[in-house]
Amino acid sequence: MANKGALYLIPTTLGDTAETADVIPVKVNQLINTIDEYIVENEKSARHYLKKIGIQKPLQEIILHPLNQHTETKNISAYLNAIEKGKNIGIISEAGCPGIADPGAEVVKLAHEKNITVCPLVGPSSILLALIASGFNGQSFAFSGYLPKERNERIKKIKELEKTAQQKNQTQLFIETPYRNMHLLEDMLITCDAKTLLCIACDITLPTEFIKTKTISDWKKQLPAINKRPAIFLIYK
Amino acid sequence: MANKGALYLIPTTLGDTAETADVIPVKVNQLINTIDEYIVENEKSARHYLKKIGIQKPLQEIILHPLNQHTETKNISAYLNAIEKGKNIGIISEAGCPGIADPGAEVVKLAHEKNITVCPLVGPSSILLALIASGFNGQSFAFSGYLPKERNERIKKIKELEKTAQQKNQTQLFIETPYRNMHLLEDMLITCDAKTLLCIACDITLPTEFIKTKTISDWKKQLPAINKRPAIFLIYK
Repeated sequence: MANKGALYLIPTTLGDTAETADVIPVKVNQLINTIDEYIVENEKSARHYLKKIGIQKPLQEIILHPLNQHTETKNISAYLNAIEKGKNIGIISEAGCPGIADPGAEVVKLAHEKNITVCPLVGPSSILLALIASGFNGQSFAFSGYLPKERNERIKKIKELEKTAQQKNQTQLFIETPYRNMHLLEDMLITCDAKTLLCIACDITLPTEFIKTKTISDWKKQLPAINKRPAIFLIYK
Repeated sequence: MANKGALYLIPTTLGDTAETADVIPVKVNQLINTIDEYIVENEKSARHYLKKIGIQKPLQEIILHPLNQHTETKNISAYLNAIEKGKNIGIISEAGCPGIADPGAEVVKLAHEKNITVCPLVGPSSILLALIASGFNGQSFAFSGYLPKERNERIKKIKELEKTAQQKNQTQLFIETPYRNMHLLEDMLITCDAKTLLCIACDITLPTEFIKTKTISDWKKQLPAINKRPAIFLIYK
């Protein structure tokens, strides 16, 4: 029986203006040329990325399997068949490391059930980079994803996160759809204690990167221009 | 007045057997040759790493400021003086990204207070790589650092983490001093529900990397050889 292949978690840049050499280790460039089959969140951006990182094979020879929230488990399972036959497969998400805030985790879960080796590769994670650049507690932290869209619910959640930050001495990380960043920020400024520390980490790894930690009362004096820019918010007491 | 320098968070490999090209982007190699002053968790391993990554300057010309849990804030503050004068400074921790489970966060906090630009660089984080390779929820997760040493306390904490994982649908990550890994594992096997999923991610990015997700009842059938190997533990219901 042939040896099984492996499932590689391929990182991508956090936006098109980032140079791959700045954020992607050379190993990933090399590996790209040994894999013919990918499970991808977005076919167009995956093709664009493979070209950008210097794939040597013609793109027509590469198989891309689409993966989104509507992809059924039986289809994902079929994607992994090639691994049983000895091929390596890569997962490429829309931005950053697969499996953090995208459907990639479902593929990895299934791979473990099939006893397939999963190989995570180093690449940019806006959550991790924001955490280390915030100066907040890195021994205890929690990421909560998107906050509720409805305003009262959102304010309630902000209060809850601030309380948890203090009670557990735990850094709280969360995100918002970029065009709603200013709404979230305004809600935080009226909801949180004046002394609570807020770090805003915006356009991480891009030429326009902006990362700043201040107290709520200091943020109130000057609002940052984060509208429509991808951002991570972190609070800590 | 001269422009201020910046504080660079320099990643290192997670152990000596990892190739830098596998886990560190080329930008870091280039940057190393433009920085003369570092704040380091361990002088010996920082020197070793700078050589390994290909520093071109003689090491005698590099200034290394020691940083550990006994370093006083006023000393850290003095380390940052060179930045005010226009120099860039790097932080190098014992392994991986500075600021996660080391005293680096204190330096970053102070840098923000002094309005110094903080530049996080991409590198290996065992926590992040374990998370994406586990197949668990990446939209909501919490890292709790080391569990309590005292056995009853540890069992209580495991129960609490398992409950939180279920109630909040939140992946729980934690670590243990490597020589106590088997004790922690045994406590989890007797404490957690048979169906709870446990991922053990060991020797991440090293040639001996081992990452596996199974139910508690499946782990009971065969214990992994993780004694004295650096490992991340993740649970999810």
